[in-house]
Amino acid sequence: MKFKLAFIGFGTVGQGLTDILLEKKELLEKKYDFQYSIVAISDIMKGSVYDENGLDMKKVLELVKKGKKLDEYPTGQKGMNAIDTIKKTNADIIIEVTYTDVKTGEPAIKHIKTALNAGKHVVSTNKGPVVKKAVELLDLAKENKVCYGFEGVVLAGTPSLNLAYYNLSGNNIKGFKGILNGTTNYILTRMEEGMSYEDALKKAQQLGYAEADPTGDVEGLDALGKVVILTNVVLGKNISWEDVERKGITQITKKDIDAAKSEGKRWKLIGSCEIQKDGSIKAKVWPEKLPLNDPLAGVMEATNALTYYTDELGSVTIVGPGAGRRETGFALLIDLLNINRNLKN
Amino acid sequence: MKFKLAFIGFGTVGQGLTDILLEKKELLEKKYDFQYSIVAISDIMKGSVYDENGLDMKKVLELVKKGKKLDEYPTGQKGMNAIDTIKKTNADIIIEVTYTDVKTGEPAIKHIKTALNAGKHVVSTNKGPVVKKAVELLDLAKENKVCYGFEGVVLAGTPSLNLAYYNLSGNNIKGFKGILNGTTNYILTRMEEGMSYEDALKKAQQLGYAEADPTGDVEGLDALGKVVILTNVVLGKNISWEDVERKGITQITKKDIDAAKSEGKRWKLIGSCEIQKDGSIKAKVWPEKLPLNDPLAGVMEATNALTYYTDELGSVTIVGPGAGRRETGFALLIDLLNINRNLKN
Repeated sequence: MKFKLAFIGFGTVGQGLTDILLEKKELLEKKYDFQYSIVAISDIMKGSVYDENGLDMKKVLELVKKGKKLDEYPTGQKGMNAIDTIKKTNADIIIEVTYTDVKTGEPAIKHIKTALNAGKHVVSTNKGPVVKKAVELLDLAKENKVCYGFEGVVLAGTPSLNLAYYNLSGNNIKGFKGILNGTTNYILTRMEEGMSYEDALKKAQQLGYAEADPTGDVEGLDALGKVVILTNVVLGKNISWEDVERKGITQITKKDIDAAKSEGKRWKLIGSCEIQKDGSIKAKVWPEKLPLNDPLAGVMEATNALTYYTDELGSVTIVGPGAGRRETGFALLIDLLNINRNLKN
Repeated sequence: MKFKLAFIGFGTVGQGLTDILLEKKELLEKKYDFQYSIVAISDIMKGSVYDENGLDMKKVLELVKKGKKLDEYPTGQKGMNAIDTIKKTNADIIIEVTYTDVKTGEPAIKHIKTALNAGKHVVSTNKGPVVKKAVELLDLAKENKVCYGFEGVVLAGTPSLNLAYYNLSGNNIKGFKGILNGTTNYILTRMEEGMSYEDALKKAQQLGYAEADPTGDVEGLDALGKVVILTNVVLGKNISWEDVERKGITQITKKDIDAAKSEGKRWKLIGSCEIQKDGSIKAKVWPEKLPLNDPLAGVMEATNALTYYTDELGSVTIVGPGAGRRETGFALLIDLLNINRNLKN
């Protein structure tokens, strides 16, 4: 099938997807019968451009890499804001990758609602809307007979949500446990090798894993958002931010690390949720000492991992990258190929 | 959608699937719009029965558990052989789970070809046909516009093939590496705790993990079959049994285990294949000493695991059960739900 795509936001993730789409154009057409043109981009910093016949994305990337505005693109309509780009262009899939406040979920929620109400599919790596409104947005998509894909919100392009949704279907998933934040896992890996927390954090910041203000990662807030998402989307509950107990890794000392080592264990920041016998849930983000033969204990560096507890298969674990320009861009491709597959059959 | 199913062979795996289908009948209908009736069973030891309106499977399981023949089922047509059951009943999906020689792939290959040529979908956990004829059988299915699903041939119901086929699509998968045999991993786990090879093997036999003649497992033949399958189905090559180097675990001693331990490593029987730069392949089953921070090193007991090497995501690993009555029966349900999903959209 052939799709017309529009980017709302055009930062690293959107550019990562664009790289993949350009490099794999032929493969995608030949192997998956997926054809595309990118008709519009609207970014609050970079400006906007719309051409109903499709943009030359190599030219677009060149402009952006030079720090220029999209207004300098030679043809097409300029100056459309996000909402107009969603409503008034001929795009049939909206790629929502704006910079969004993870707590409020805005402006992404507004963009996604607008698109779904306009009968357009949405793929997005924005966590905020899924943390705040997963159930409502999925219902809205269903009502409008379109798809809302967000594989990238947990474990980036590692297909953790699709694993639960497609491949484990028929199972009753009763809980999960995972290393859901790469930055903290990177810091713990360095501390395991002897570095202090402060030095490990500095190194993570140098590599771009941690932000200047690392609170979101090291205090477990990022992992907490993912626990909320998995609980609502995979376990079918409807919890919010406050329902999750939380403790970060800032109080873990070298002494703690060494003590664990001598017991044959390893500290990991674990996000988890289990459905209790009465149907209530117990959700938390908490540092745990795992025995070395736990599949999650061997997951080092910035790698992420997620174990689902199922009734038919017992524990099923997936391990893979949890961040990165192309790795997260690839998550959007998973969603795009799902839409293609669903509509094609 | 509603399907009419026929079992060719009715051993533990078929009975495992039947348990799941009976217990989850309502869930499957409500959540996945999957309805079924089982119209026929033909088993070389247990006899056969056919009722175009569907069999009462609780009654069938009662008979089988008492060691009785299907001829004692109160109604329906008796005495049909496998081929007639495939061709002459009103079944639209054939569940091929006969006892089959893994080297020749027979009689399963004949059953599967007959079914596909008759325009019937096939789901099967038999490794032989996939080792010998994956490419040919998949082509035949395509020609006849039906599906041939075999998720259970690698890692039982842990969705390893579907992970590659659906969720990682868009990636170029360049190789894989896995713990593909649970029995040997169980033996190595016990040896790690101090048991001798002989005692560990005996324990595996007591638990039903290893057969009286354990050659297939301990000499790496079972893992080898899976390497052939993954190479042909996931990497898109067309190799056979002889193209894989092989060494089992029978020569690993307690001394080797202890030496690895002192290096911070752990022995695992690894099945792997990598596509070389010239497009040729390097496939083997070989014991390897893995560092403890390799995601495969923490996989203990009879659990299986498989790492795919991809161009977009780097390494992606799935860990889960590799055997078991219900776990393997569940693999057939994955295939059935895929058929349902593909035809429904």
